Amino acid sequence: MRVGYYQYRPQFGKVSHNLNKVVKKLGSAAADLIVLPELAFTGYYFRNKAEVKALAEDPGRSVTVDTLTALCKKQNFRIVTGFTEKARDKYFNSALLIGPRGVEHVYRKLHLFNEEKKWFDEGNIPLQVNRIGPVRIGIMVCFDWVFPEVTRTLALQGADIICHPSNLVLGYCQQTMLTRCLENKVYAITTNRFGYDNRPQGNLRFTGRSQIVAPGGTLIHRAASQREELFIMDIDPRLARDKSITPHNEVLRDRRPEYYKALTQKKGK
Amino acid sequence: MRVGYYQYRPQFGKVSHNLNKVVKKLGSAAADLIVLPELAFTGYYFRNKAEVKALAEDPGRSVTVDTLTALCKKQNFRIVTGFTEKARDKYFNSALLIGPRGVEHVYRKLHLFNEEKKWFDEGNIPLQVNRIGPVRIGIMVCFDWVFPEVTRTLALQGADIICHPSNLVLGYCQQTMLTRCLENKVYAITTNRFGYDNRPQGNLRFTGRSQIVAPGGTLIHRAASQREELFIMDIDPRLARDKSITPHNEVLRDRRPEYYKALTQKKGK
Repeated sequence: MRVGYYQYRPQFGKVSHNLNKVVKKLGSAAADLIVLPELAFTGYYFRNKAEVKALAEDPGRSVTVDTLTALCKKQNFRIVTGFTEKARDKYFNSALLIGPRGVEHVYRKLHLFNEEKKWFDEGNIPLQVNRIGPVRIGIMVCFDWVFPEVTRTLALQGADIICHPSNLVLGYCQQTMLTRCLENKVYAITTNRFGYDNRPQGNLRFTGRSQIVAPGGTLIHRAASQREELFIMDIDPRLARDKSITPHNEVLRDRRPEYYKALTQKKGK
Repeated sequence: MRVGYYQYRPQFGKVSHNLNKVVKKLGSAAADLIVLPELAFTGYYFRNKAEVKALAEDPGRSVTVDTLTALCKKQNFRIVTGFTEKARDKYFNSALLIGPRGVEHVYRKLHLFNEEKKWFDEGNIPLQVNRIGPVRIGIMVCFDWVFPEVTRTLALQGADIICHPSNLVLGYCQQTMLTRCLENKVYAITTNRFGYDNRPQGNLRFTGRSQIVAPGGTLIHRAASQREELFIMDIDPRLARDKSITPHNEVLRDRRPEYYKALTQKKGK
């Protein structure tokens, strides 16, 4: 299975410019699955909710989605991409799984980062694994990495590959994703953007270093911090079905869920 | 609060020798809490269950526990130590919290590592946080580190410091504990042994590198791989009460437990 990421630098607010850039770059890519960054076409650093409203799209009638669907059809691959989603009167920091026949899944970021809480609504769709042939992929977005529950939930649902569109500004995530892949024995493709969003309210710098990590936590490839890169490689997703960590231990089967009840209790106090 | 670890090399089967070593070393230590390795007095690499039976002690009538209690009383500190526990007809890889008045808590390892499954029974006591004055400590043992649910459960119960007696043979744990302290914003004291258990069935080498990690995932101190070290330092446990990771995010409060239900579902299939 050929998987990859495209690390680039969206320009804030220039949706069609960013879309053209992606279409041009991926227009000759041979792959099965390519992961793009979070909020891949609008840019990230919104000034307020009004800016989100002006740029968000309903995936059901979106030029961006239609264009990406056509690209998937032409190249016969799938894309997981960050997407600034409008859904009636709500706005989500979402990720779409898009294939040759259109959107196959919408994931809405469950854990909003910092000022995103002002701009977006909290995700309201359960974590779910989707199939690409025999391979199962799970989707999470950027700051979800802090919460081990996310990758774990996807792994328990059978995810072989975690697709992880990101706009990272902190520096911890890349290393932490090695832990996620070790403790769940899954692949993870973290696609980060680079460059700045230079906005009236300030500048935000993104840290690049997109990466692909193998089950067991081995870093296979990592991009530079501030350089565009389309990287595609062959992986064997079946390796993610081997959950053993010793001859007598498997990372999922050895769990003791009856002792983890605090994890699903409603927040109190 | 003065906390520390004693990284040493128990000799297999020589309980009183190992106990004397610890008593001598800690007999003049000024501290509030000292963490010892897993199975700190018996050694680790059992040949079979009969060897466990021969060496395990019931904490209620144990020379080891009585001696450590006297040490805690003399020095006015507490010890968290790995302990080869007999409980009626069961045998556990346990950790004891011992203070000047005796055993304050027994934790029984929930996730047995590799051949331990042949020697020990699985832990059957819920994860629980214990107080040392205003400070809350959580206990886990060695391989529990692989399962993010363990540290998370203790953090949700309010643990400020994770005490982590270990006999590590793999090399991943120390780095992963940085992730555990980042994602939960707790301290962790991982006390590992070093040296070999040279046994008829083979030799097992332990990796040392005991460490203290601060909330946020900062490594404060790490021992060498193969050298004895008693290390004690001042920490401010109140830092573990600050769960913020950005001005708008806290690692526990931002959890979305209603989306984590898979984590506590019974194993199926």
